[in-house]
Amino acid sequence: MIKSNSTNSNIQQIKVAVDCIIFGFNDNKLELLLIKKKENPEKGKWSLIGGFVGFDEDLDEAANRILSDLSGLQDIYMEQIKTFGKVDRCSFDRIISSTYSAMILKSRYTEDKISKYNAQWFPITEVPDLIFDHNDMVDIAIKRMRRRVRNFPIAFNLLPPKFTLPQLQVLYEGILDEELDKRNFRRKVAQMKYLVRLDEKDMSESRRGAFLYRFDETLFENEQNFNL
Amino acid sequence: MIKSNSTNSNIQQIKVAVDCIIFGFNDNKLELLLIKKKENPEKGKWSLIGGFVGFDEDLDEAANRILSDLSGLQDIYMEQIKTFGKVDRCSFDRIISSTYSAMILKSRYTEDKISKYNAQWFPITEVPDLIFDHNDMVDIAIKRMRRRVRNFPIAFNLLPPKFTLPQLQVLYEGILDEELDKRNFRRKVAQMKYLVRLDEKDMSESRRGAFLYRFDETLFENEQNFNL
Repeated sequence: MIKSNSTNSNIQQIKVAVDCIIFGFNDNKLELLLIKKKENPEKGKWSLIGGFVGFDEDLDEAANRILSDLSGLQDIYMEQIKTFGKVDRCSFDRIISSTYSAMILKSRYTEDKISKYNAQWFPITEVPDLIFDHNDMVDIAIKRMRRRVRNFPIAFNLLPPKFTLPQLQVLYEGILDEELDKRNFRRKVAQMKYLVRLDEKDMSESRRGAFLYRFDETLFENEQNFNL
Repeated sequence: MIKSNSTNSNIQQIKVAVDCIIFGFNDNKLELLLIKKKENPEKGKWSLIGGFVGFDEDLDEAANRILSDLSGLQDIYMEQIKTFGKVDRCSFDRIISSTYSAMILKSRYTEDKISKYNAQWFPITEVPDLIFDHNDMVDIAIKRMRRRVRNFPIAFNLLPPKFTLPQLQVLYEGILDEELDKRNFRRKVAQMKYLVRLDEKDMSESRRGAFLYRFDETLFENEQNFNL
């Protein structure tokens, strides 16, 4: 590959980074994956999982490569959230950073894999001071995730294929970090035409049992198109 | 300001650009603002309104500066949409580009201001072949805008402060580019508790008149918090 801008090589250029905001769902609580910086000038401080984008690497690829390099987590579908580009976001360099985020079920990933790295899970309510504008990044990702959970069925991949309404409510309460009124919740759920009640019950929690439901992706797509 | 990476100055660096996707609403139709490239290698081709981000310029500032420089449009609140970063998105350089978008009422901006520039409005259904991945950028911005219009009251700033339901329906039909069943539309609107019916009618369109409504931002915020 040829060098693209040899005439500009002594001009100050903006560096391009990515930062990964990984939420883990565990015991009905949200957690956030962080790493401790090993090198100066931010040595010892907590950070999102980030790094520079390679010249020959797609932005999306960079996010996946960096997440895997620094935490061992692989094959996680991350969604791009926002690119942070304030001049003073880092005191010693001009870097813009695209954030990527995913929400995973922690139990699907072995803990020891992560502890081999410098990575650690923090409860979302106990996120420490992070480098640069990383706390802002986390705030925006949480807000967006909660807004999307309210409007889109993005939480269903955290449930087994068949689930009960109490399970669904506990999941939402954990993500939104608020108690939901059962009657309001049921009323709202009744509007989700893409939630299909099965002719099967989970009998493990009560004698009457609780009907099992499944998420129907096709019905969801139709509803999105049909509704205003 | 000191040079940040003197040791790396002969390393290939990614360039950072922004592209602005400006939708104009006019005569109940959506249009898109484009410019014709004046310089090689893309001379004569149509493009979104874009350019490089300055080293001492916030990403958001760059978007506003470039929009103003190339189209004359000022003080337009643009929302960041997505950053495009595929290695091969531009054949002769490595550039990542953050897209920003806004939807404006064309009548609020004078035409001659834009025609002084190389800018031109195109009906959304007649967008020409654009440079690089700009057609993808437009597609994603349209999809996102339509999804947001369905779920959030972002279209209300295109209406006068008091408006009728027929006006609202025509607006939605224009943005979504589909006819909406009046009864379904009214049913959906009835669920928007933040639409407040006034004790006033617009008598200009029919003898019975049509009630006027207003959008209540506080009620909207409350509903967002209260609903699941």
